[in-house]
Amino acid sequence: MSFSPAIRELVEAFRTLPGVGQKTAQRMALYILERNRAGGERLSQALQTAVEQVGHCNECRTLSETDLCPICADERRDTGLLCIVQGPLDVFALEQTGYKGRYFVLKGHLSPLDGLGPEAIGIPELLRHIDTHQYTEVILANNPTVEGEATAHYIAQLLQDKPLSLTRLAQGMPMGGELEMVDGGTLIQAFAGRKPVQF
Amino acid sequence: MSFSPAIRELVEAFRTLPGVGQKTAQRMALYILERNRAGGERLSQALQTAVEQVGHCNECRTLSETDLCPICADERRDTGLLCIVQGPLDVFALEQTGYKGRYFVLKGHLSPLDGLGPEAIGIPELLRHIDTHQYTEVILANNPTVEGEATAHYIAQLLQDKPLSLTRLAQGMPMGGELEMVDGGTLIQAFAGRKPVQF
Ligand SMILES: [Zn+2]
Ligand SMILES: [Zn+2]
Repeated sequence: MSFSPAIRELVEAFRTLPGVGQKTAQRMALYILERNRAGGERLSQALQTAVEQVGHCNECRTLSETDLCPICADERRDTGLLCIVQGPLDVFALEQTGYKGRYFVLKGHLSPLDGLGPEAIGIPELLRHIDTHQYTEVILANNPTVEGEATAHYIAQLLQDKPLSLTRLAQGMPMGGELEMVDGGTLIQAFAGRKPVQF
Repeated sequence: MSFSPAIRELVEAFRTLPGVGQKTAQRMALYILERNRAGGERLSQALQTAVEQVGHCNECRTLSETDLCPICADERRDTGLLCIVQGPLDVFALEQTGYKGRYFVLKGHLSPLDGLGPEAIGIPELLRHIDTHQYTEVILANNPTVEGEATAHYIAQLLQDKPLSLTRLAQGMPMGGELEMVDGGTLIQAFAGRKPVQF
């Protein structure tokens, strides 16, 4: 390795990011140093600020630097609808659908083999949250994976006696998907959920 | 966009990196905040240190935080050999070959359409460098691209009357390359440079 220590350390620090290998980290470090030092200072400052100030929303547990995140603080949202997701990125994805209810953000899915039980992912907080709000519908938007399905099923059982309608996102062919490219599990769901043609 | 301001700014700051789009930037920001805040602080500090301290080596012009980069400061290197490259990453790549001479790092290749003439890429400094050293061979390791070839040709003309041997990296089939996958230009070079089989 022929770089000087400060460059080497910058490359190593970039490598801690997800999906960033040695070559990509080198390219990032040299881009900052050769072409965009202002961008480097901006990123340095943004990291410092975010790490120091961002905690979790008191209501929905998503990442937020205020006690209430912008969604929970928005009084125009539908307070009768709750959508349960496994992480903050899912909130961002669902916001693009036009959903206007509330969220509760778990810390991942149940995964007994990894030691992730109900407490670890925030199920007790979820139950307290539901008990202190007046929701009419709870949408279990856990991922359609083995662990996501198991988590949704577990939550559904805990909530089944409450006066709530429990729903799950529809499964089927992704928009723009081609039959030959879609996996078998998705195809089975799409078949099982087939609907009459609307004229 | 439903993130709070500090997260939004962190996502935007990650987007200034090369090859990082919106989704990747979000994943990086949430990874730092949810799983690796120590990594975030390390990257913040590494960026600050590098942007403040890294300049250019007085000898070879590569990025370095010391007046002499580790290679130029290494007295065991062969001081009769100079390798001219278009940027600091090329130094790193060539170090892996076991090359033990010196380098001179240009700021890219000549590109008249982009306003990059000899001054912009550091040709005057290169000539001064060569005049104040005793090199016996100068290796023109500019990329085998149109602009790289033009730059190598330009430098070769400037140096042709000096008592130096001028060389260029060999061109041909890349190791592991398959005939049907290699582009025509490479194949032409490989054909023209064909060699007798050694027994
Ligand atoms: Zn919230
Ligand atoms: Zn140097």
